[in-house]
Amino acid sequence: MDTHILLPIALMLAGAKILGEASERFLKMPAVLAEIVVGIVLGKSVFGVVDGGNLILQAIAGIGAVFLLFEVGLECDLDEIFRVGFQSLWVAIAGVTITIGSCVVAARFLGHPSSQALFIAAAFASTSVGITARVFSDLSALQTREARIVLGAAVVDDVIGLIVLAIVSGLATTTFAVSDVFRTSSFAIIFLVGAVVIGRIATPLLLKWARKMKTRAAVSMAAVVLCMLMASVAEMVQLAPIIGAFAAGVVLAKTQEKVRFEEKVKSIGDMFVPLFFVIVGARMDLSALTPSVALSALLFVVIACAAKVIAGLSVPGKGIGRWVVGVGMIPRGEVSLIFASIGQTQHLISPAIYASIVFVVIATTFITPPILKLATLRFERQASVPAT
Amino acid sequence: MDTHILLPIALMLAGAKILGEASERFLKMPAVLAEIVVGIVLGKSVFGVVDGGNLILQAIAGIGAVFLLFEVGLECDLDEIFRVGFQSLWVAIAGVTITIGSCVVAARFLGHPSSQALFIAAAFASTSVGITARVFSDLSALQTREARIVLGAAVVDDVIGLIVLAIVSGLATTTFAVSDVFRTSSFAIIFLVGAVVIGRIATPLLLKWARKMKTRAAVSMAAVVLCMLMASVAEMVQLAPIIGAFAAGVVLAKTQEKVRFEEKVKSIGDMFVPLFFVIVGARMDLSALTPSVALSALLFVVIACAAKVIAGLSVPGKGIGRWVVGVGMIPRGEVSLIFASIGQTQHLISPAIYASIVFVVIATTFITPPILKLATLRFERQASVPAT
Repeated sequence: MDTHILLPIALMLAGAKILGEASERFLKMPAVLAEIVVGIVLGKSVFGVVDGGNLILQAIAGIGAVFLLFEVGLECDLDEIFRVGFQSLWVAIAGVTITIGSCVVAARFLGHPSSQALFIAAAFASTSVGITARVFSDLSALQTREARIVLGAAVVDDVIGLIVLAIVSGLATTTFAVSDVFRTSSFAIIFLVGAVVIGRIATPLLLKWARKMKTRAAVSMAAVVLCMLMASVAEMVQLAPIIGAFAAGVVLAKTQEKVRFEEKVKSIGDMFVPLFFVIVGARMDLSALTPSVALSALLFVVIACAAKVIAGLSVPGKGIGRWVVGVGMIPRGEVSLIFASIGQTQHLISPAIYASIVFVVIATTFITPPILKLATLRFERQASVPAT
Repeated sequence: MDTHILLPIALMLAGAKILGEASERFLKMPAVLAEIVVGIVLGKSVFGVVDGGNLILQAIAGIGAVFLLFEVGLECDLDEIFRVGFQSLWVAIAGVTITIGSCVVAARFLGHPSSQALFIAAAFASTSVGITARVFSDLSALQTREARIVLGAAVVDDVIGLIVLAIVSGLATTTFAVSDVFRTSSFAIIFLVGAVVIGRIATPLLLKWARKMKTRAAVSMAAVVLCMLMASVAEMVQLAPIIGAFAAGVVLAKTQEKVRFEEKVKSIGDMFVPLFFVIVGARMDLSALTPSVALSALLFVVIACAAKVIAGLSVPGKGIGRWVVGVGMIPRGEVSLIFASIGQTQHLISPAIYASIVFVVIATTFITPPILKLATLRFERQASVPAT
């Protein structure tokens, strides 16, 4: 194995920042898209300077995914989610259910065995919190009711997505059995609830103790240790490490020491989260995207968009821009890519499916901003016309 | 290879912080000692939960060493070194020369071939800036003339040590030839001077450009990219990557953007630098420290101490606490451990020599504070007695 990883890291970070800037500035697209594209360009499909299959780089991508979900957890206010109201919950559950249902049917239709079809479908279940927030913020619409519904739903469906990941990655390796579904989902729920309950009691003590320490960076390293420990515990009980990292973030989100470690933890994420997305791109084999695979990927794009739009249109309540909500839920992102990454590492999915998932993430993120703009304009025009 | 690295990382960081705190608080010893000891305990010598030979962990240790030298470079004010005066330069050059000369003789006496003897001797050449600063600061003596001489000399001998490292790691693989010494040392000096000159011109432009970018963490990632790039260039011209990282730090030390990235870069170092020291410890095989090896290691401790004390005693000038300067120069640290780490990775040194180097670092750091206290008290008593 090639152990010279400093040059690949430098190239990946430089590419991610330069293309990320160009994409944000000129295309008004989130940097994450550019990071995936940089990976595809540096990876085996084009220049071949980054070997996405290198175990050291995969470990670094894994650290990146852990920090990504740790940050998502830190931003995730459980009380807010419990308050977020009926509409977000509705959109989240409807979106996940419709996506998984329709994608399973499509995947079966395309000839995938049922356990794999479920894995593919589940990969498309969760809307990306980060990308969605970015898109609404670019439209200066973060404070609208629709944006709040979408963001709430996106956080909720991340949690659902992580639980589904635990279930389907367990299932895909064994034959399908209802008892397995029950066992793995109970594991996941017990772990998440247990981690949050125990964590909420234990972490204030841990952090209080770390705060009294004189050694350098004690508080931020206590947070990192907690994150890594919970990620390893998740791994031990056959869940994805990122579930533990997310739980650690949720637990630490409400501590009063958060201000002391948040910036430092984010600085580590600044380096490793882009590397995760770039390495995900580098692992994509463009040549796996044959015309027939591309066609099936397109089918998934259409279904993935339709499922979320239908979920948005179905939301009850008066005066809600249902199209805005539905379109806002379209972008897939980190959770889908983590499905792809775990699926490939555990040999659950073929390079073709891997390429399809990355394709869907790129496509849904690309088409959302213009459609969302249209939907928003249309809704505002309707809303400004007094009801007759 | 075991790719489950989250648990080892969590354990290493937790151990480093807990033992580091205990060592600073109760033993008044720098945390770095505790980190090495944590590594020895977690490594194959005791519990075996951290496999120091794992390539992923070695890559992480490598990233840690790069960030360590990057930070040392960032703290290194070239103008200050040029101003630091004659005494520091004297102590540095005398210390390095006497250490290498006497240790080569000792190593040859112990039966090591000459190129390896030079590698061992060079490993003991540099005083640790970090540990020395810590020890003087614990004595509240950082502002004394002696402390300034020692710290200046420690920075200078780090630079000399890095150049010597470039020379001897090239030599140890080939047969000894004066032309090789000349070639490698010219390479190292041309690289360092070239990197600093080009860097000082190019980096203000690079950072100015990064500052205008809107994408997240552009300035700090520009600094990290520069560090990684220069580390890879150093690697390409057969020098150690840390030399490039150090040069990158020196180049960036004087930029006005330093305030914008320094904290963020240090936050990444907070995680990876302790991991470097812990993994160095984990790679030590205690069983390699047989009675005869331990005895030869003790010999190196005595010589390493004597060489620096003699260098201190030889310093010209009036009213200087020569013993304080000499004793202050005793602690070996990061540069010695990097020699050990590179030597083992490139199979230049045996486990016994590796263990001896780690032993010398631990021993010199342990004995310095009490002796320095004695030397300081003695000097103050003499100074307060009016000359008769």
